[in-house]
Amino acid sequence: MITKETKITIVGLGLLGGSYAQGLSNAGYTVYGIDIDPEAVSFAKEKGWIAGGSNDPASVRDSEIVIFALYPKTFVEWICRYQDLLPAGCIITDVTGVKRNVIAGINAMLRPDVEYIAAHPMAGREFKGIQYADCSRFRQANYIIVATKDNTEKAIDAAREIAEILQFRYIGELTPEDHDRMIGFLSQLTHVIAVSLMNVSDNPDLVKYTGDSFRDLTRIANINADLWPELFIENKDYLMKEIDLFMDELAQFRQMIDDENVEGMKEKMIISTERRKAFDR
Amino acid sequence: MITKETKITIVGLGLLGGSYAQGLSNAGYTVYGIDIDPEAVSFAKEKGWIAGGSNDPASVRDSEIVIFALYPKTFVEWICRYQDLLPAGCIITDVTGVKRNVIAGINAMLRPDVEYIAAHPMAGREFKGIQYADCSRFRQANYIIVATKDNTEKAIDAAREIAEILQFRYIGELTPEDHDRMIGFLSQLTHVIAVSLMNVSDNPDLVKYTGDSFRDLTRIANINADLWPELFIENKDYLMKEIDLFMDELAQFRQMIDDENVEGMKEKMIISTERRKAFDR
Repeated sequence: MITKETKITIVGLGLLGGSYAQGLSNAGYTVYGIDIDPEAVSFAKEKGWIAGGSNDPASVRDSEIVIFALYPKTFVEWICRYQDLLPAGCIITDVTGVKRNVIAGINAMLRPDVEYIAAHPMAGREFKGIQYADCSRFRQANYIIVATKDNTEKAIDAAREIAEILQFRYIGELTPEDHDRMIGFLSQLTHVIAVSLMNVSDNPDLVKYTGDSFRDLTRIANINADLWPELFIENKDYLMKEIDLFMDELAQFRQMIDDENVEGMKEKMIISTERRKAFDR
Repeated sequence: MITKETKITIVGLGLLGGSYAQGLSNAGYTVYGIDIDPEAVSFAKEKGWIAGGSNDPASVRDSEIVIFALYPKTFVEWICRYQDLLPAGCIITDVTGVKRNVIAGINAMLRPDVEYIAAHPMAGREFKGIQYADCSRFRQANYIIVATKDNTEKAIDAAREIAEILQFRYIGELTPEDHDRMIGFLSQLTHVIAVSLMNVSDNPDLVKYTGDSFRDLTRIANINADLWPELFIENKDYLMKEIDLFMDELAQFRQMIDDENVEGMKEKMIISTERRKAFDR
């Protein structure tokens, strides 16, 4: 049970780590921060989002909860290098957008007296850095707890409590496989499509004629180029399968246009219209 | 020059025809309406959007401007069947989303004493019917005049005046070929992508986890299934070329994931981010 006295440390004060610090401290919890960039630490301090912070990994020493808001590989490397600094009995969690490899990597080496409960707040943005932190966005977002059979109720509850304090709209639970499959389709495939669509044409006149449709489909083409290639590679098998399924579907539709198969196209559009209604807000 | 005394008739009181009637009458112009559906005519009358209306094609008889807000084939058929009812010297225009075939079809048979100036208000929506008419949307939309070498300045000016009265955000001019190529990429390809994405998976659990990305990319999967297959077929050559270019791009990105080519993906993302900035509003 997380109380106002629980010492929580966030490692990585970027967009998400900063938003966590903001949301938790706003709710009255005691948060500390660690970041290699002293400016991110100063920013969080000035805003009152952390009670203290530094660039020293050793400052996790007396934390009961440690939240890692790092890129997947950086998180695994941090644990590999510094896990001896974690106090016995502490619970660690994260925010990474891919899960199977991260969970396997962490659990393969984590000390037995520390427990890792994986979580994915689906609230990333096209911007990076703590200056874009905004915990109010969590109220529109989903939070997924990705527990394994080895996780204790205590750790799962801690992840859930964090999500509740941060007021996520929906808190769900998925296996690592189901999480990665879902993310491969809903998030990764859509980003691949948007990036590809934007790369197809360099005609500068298009902007004059672009309406809402093209704008909608390419908003996420504005993307963090340091993070996403890593996320794609970590989820390579599922993502490539989703790209293949989508390309098959697209090829089928192309054939219908070629055949001037009005009824076939109509059927696809009736299905898409019907299914899309469930996603209206 | 269109004046408040010019008699304007709109043939087809649907979403776009209704919005035209609303916008023109709000601005003090005299508008009449024709529709095969008496309820659409009554609706426009009750709202005060038309001074009079009927389902009788003969009521175009003394109109100086006739705006056809019909599906492409229905427009061509109307002209074929009823063009003798148009008064000598009248200017006709339209709202169809594909141009080469429509312009060729109309001009191949149109009486020499009537002039057709093609136009495309890029303000379609996922809904159909006059009950969704809303001329305020034009202020965010583009209007494209698609003139040929045979068009007179008088007719081009008339199309421009209509767009100005309706307060379109941007009024441009394109050749039929450039128009159809642009629409094939910006509008038709994006709709094909959205419909296909929605058809790939019927997993009802997805809606629980869907964030903004998937919602953005599939908004236009809610589509008028009676209209769009016709638009796709009318622009088949250009649309299929755009689908092919997009699929090549997608296949290239897929290969980069397979090769774990981080630098290649990064480069694509830097380009997409840079290009997308020009489309920000």
